[in-house]
Amino acid sequence: MFSKRTEWDTDESEMAQAYRERRAQGLPVMDLTASNPTRAGFAYAEDLLAPLADARALDYDPNPKGSVAAREAVCRYYAELGAEVDAEQVVLTTSTSEAYSYLFKLLCDPGDVVLAQQPSYPLFDFLARAECVELEAAPLVYDFGWQLDVAELERRITPRTKALVLVHPNNPTGHFTKGAEAEEIGRVCREHGVALIVDEVFLDYALMSGDEQDRETFLKRDIGVPVFVVSGISKICGLPQVKAAWIVADGPGWREAMARLEVVADTFLSMNAPVQRALPVWLERREEMQGQIRERVVGNLAELDLQIAASAARGEGLVSRLAVEGGWYVVLRIPATQLDEVTALELLDCGVWVHPGHFFGMAESGWLVVSLLAPLQEFAAGITELLSYLSGRYTV
Amino acid sequence: MFSKRTEWDTDESEMAQAYRERRAQGLPVMDLTASNPTRAGFAYAEDLLAPLADARALDYDPNPKGSVAAREAVCRYYAELGAEVDAEQVVLTTSTSEAYSYLFKLLCDPGDVVLAQQPSYPLFDFLARAECVELEAAPLVYDFGWQLDVAELERRITPRTKALVLVHPNNPTGHFTKGAEAEEIGRVCREHGVALIVDEVFLDYALMSGDEQDRETFLKRDIGVPVFVVSGISKICGLPQVKAAWIVADGPGWREAMARLEVVADTFLSMNAPVQRALPVWLERREEMQGQIRERVVGNLAELDLQIAASAARGEGLVSRLAVEGGWYVVLRIPATQLDEVTALELLDCGVWVHPGHFFGMAESGWLVVSLLAPLQEFAAGITELLSYLSGRYTV
Ligand SMILES: Cc1ncc(COP(=O)(O)O)c(C=O)c1O
Ligand SMILES: Cc1ncc(COP(=O)(O)O)c(C=O)c1O
Repeated sequence: MFSKRTEWDTDESEMAQAYRERRAQGLPVMDLTASNPTRAGFAYAEDLLAPLADARALDYDPNPKGSVAAREAVCRYYAELGAEVDAEQVVLTTSTSEAYSYLFKLLCDPGDVVLAQQPSYPLFDFLARAECVELEAAPLVYDFGWQLDVAELERRITPRTKALVLVHPNNPTGHFTKGAEAEEIGRVCREHGVALIVDEVFLDYALMSGDEQDRETFLKRDIGVPVFVVSGISKICGLPQVKAAWIVADGPGWREAMARLEVVADTFLSMNAPVQRALPVWLERREEMQGQIRERVVGNLAELDLQIAASAARGEGLVSRLAVEGGWYVVLRIPATQLDEVTALELLDCGVWVHPGHFFGMAESGWLVVSLLAPLQEFAAGITELLSYLSGRYTV
Repeated sequence: MFSKRTEWDTDESEMAQAYRERRAQGLPVMDLTASNPTRAGFAYAEDLLAPLADARALDYDPNPKGSVAAREAVCRYYAELGAEVDAEQVVLTTSTSEAYSYLFKLLCDPGDVVLAQQPSYPLFDFLARAECVELEAAPLVYDFGWQLDVAELERRITPRTKALVLVHPNNPTGHFTKGAEAEEIGRVCREHGVALIVDEVFLDYALMSGDEQDRETFLKRDIGVPVFVVSGISKICGLPQVKAAWIVADGPGWREAMARLEVVADTFLSMNAPVQRALPVWLERREEMQGQIRERVVGNLAELDLQIAASAARGEGLVSRLAVEGGWYVVLRIPATQLDEVTALELLDCGVWVHPGHFFGMAESGWLVVSLLAPLQEFAAGITELLSYLSGRYTV
């Protein structure tokens, strides 16, 4: 009766079950996977949703790409980042997920292939499959910092390969695709007619200093291929619940791409009028939330480093963290002596909830991913527990 | 570079161009295609969007199917229609378009076929193509009322046919699928493993009296096949701009269907939290708008009948209207001596804007479709002009 494309494994995973049961027993959990900013103890202004009630939205003037006023607010956001974007290049969507679904429809027929960095955002599997697109990995390598294995990327491209997805900075590796690297990737994509989809939802959360050109929006880069930048205010404004995102089409052929995207958008007309009215206000006020989130991320990272250093000083030295340039996550290197999923389950028994790196497409052993969004105290206690678990497990 | 599935003809149609040019010249148009209730002179309460500002929506508790409170409001709506629906059967979507996209994904792999009544809602073509689904026609016949040609339906079913879409009442024919007809359709679908998708957005706008069982929701019918009822508040509450719709899964296999739909919904999480909070309020208040809309539709239909009768009395008799049982549209029979699109263009020159029936999949000659939503005066003047155009064209 039902389609192959929705033949997901809908059984609860062992980890989800363990988590649910622990919660049901009323046992505490220090959540080091926290990614929902509305539940991380930030102060949201009480009036932040007030623009939604504006009675002018009782008048509906459907525009497939979204209202001009809302799209112009997106252009101002990029102007402040130094990129010139025309409102004609922008289409609003209710989520980056919807943005991906529009782009996969635009670029791929059934059986076509999209490459995505690995490790990266786990949702790509679902998004691709729902649109009858094959997802393949473009491997990242770590060598004092992450980068795409461009030679391997090129080997994996076939005539069916239509797009490469980059997350910039990437989740969970927290690395930016540097300027020189972007050039090189651009050359390969140009030669093989592959478009770039660049997810910049974490762009405003750069942690590193250093060369600005290494962490700029792809809309400032001119690499001669069609580029579709995807972003939204889940992260930019810490408002995942209002469902406002967008695509910016840039590079050669953007007008033709936009004409087609407009028909797709006209078929769905997903973003409601009140959100379109409110979007300029939220973008205007983004620093209210970004400031708090940035402080949290920086604070948690410093705490992590302190604890790792102290643990090393105690002669344990079982954990190191990889370099992180931006975003809300950090990757931890741990002894690769058992499946990380087993480690995660054992940690849950100690009241600490982490992601095995495998969840993001890393190897099955040796990697944990923790979010830097948790409230400082919870984060600190969770890391302490994690280190003590590891030292108990591995030290004599 | 781009996909076949988005190779739409994006050129402006001759009709769209003519309309745009007339508007640009500042010439008046009596719009008998009006389908946007927010621009049809209805009185909306100023506070209708106020629930969106509820600061409680600053807390985000993502639920793939939508919040329980919002889904329970949908269940109450059906309870008032006499149908028992469990919140577990409901998934919220941002539009019926999104609902269709979820259902096409659930039921069809690339190349699978969905049958839809013809004539019906023109968007199905776009929705199916975007999901790599083939759309085929299940022809309606008119014989003092519309009904599905069930024998022909059965002939058109192949192993690739996964679903039949019924609009109940249909747009633009305004007919309900009667109880006995639903039984017969159910038998055919059951025998061939075809699911039913039933679009009931106009369900609350029944015009006919007569047998209640002929215009009840399919959720009251037990026809032994998987049924997916699609609806939303664009029509139910006259609020197309807030983007709130849903799917109710019923009949055999609904739990398995829901488990899969939940994964699709979890991939998109499209409906924002403020709208989920407001949905129960809007559904509660739906009569505010439905009353006005119903009065308008009834008034315009009476006006149409008066004018048609007067025209007949004048010996012209060039127009008749087909029976209409519900919804916001009516089909007019006109002389089939030229393409209806030419008639529509000529009418536009007289300041009247109508749909050729062809737009909804009717024959190319002999049919116009007019909306019953326009303000009474504009509607009356438009019909007068339409009749006078036809009598000028066809009477000696
Ligand atoms: C790389 C990436 N893109 C997009 C999103 C989510 O964006 P949205 O809420 O607009 O779907 C996330 C959330 O974690 C993410 O990590
Ligand atoms: C049959 C039918 N379904 C659905 C819709 C639109 O619903 P939504 O605004 O939720 O996409 C319409 C609008 O005209 C319609 O005629």
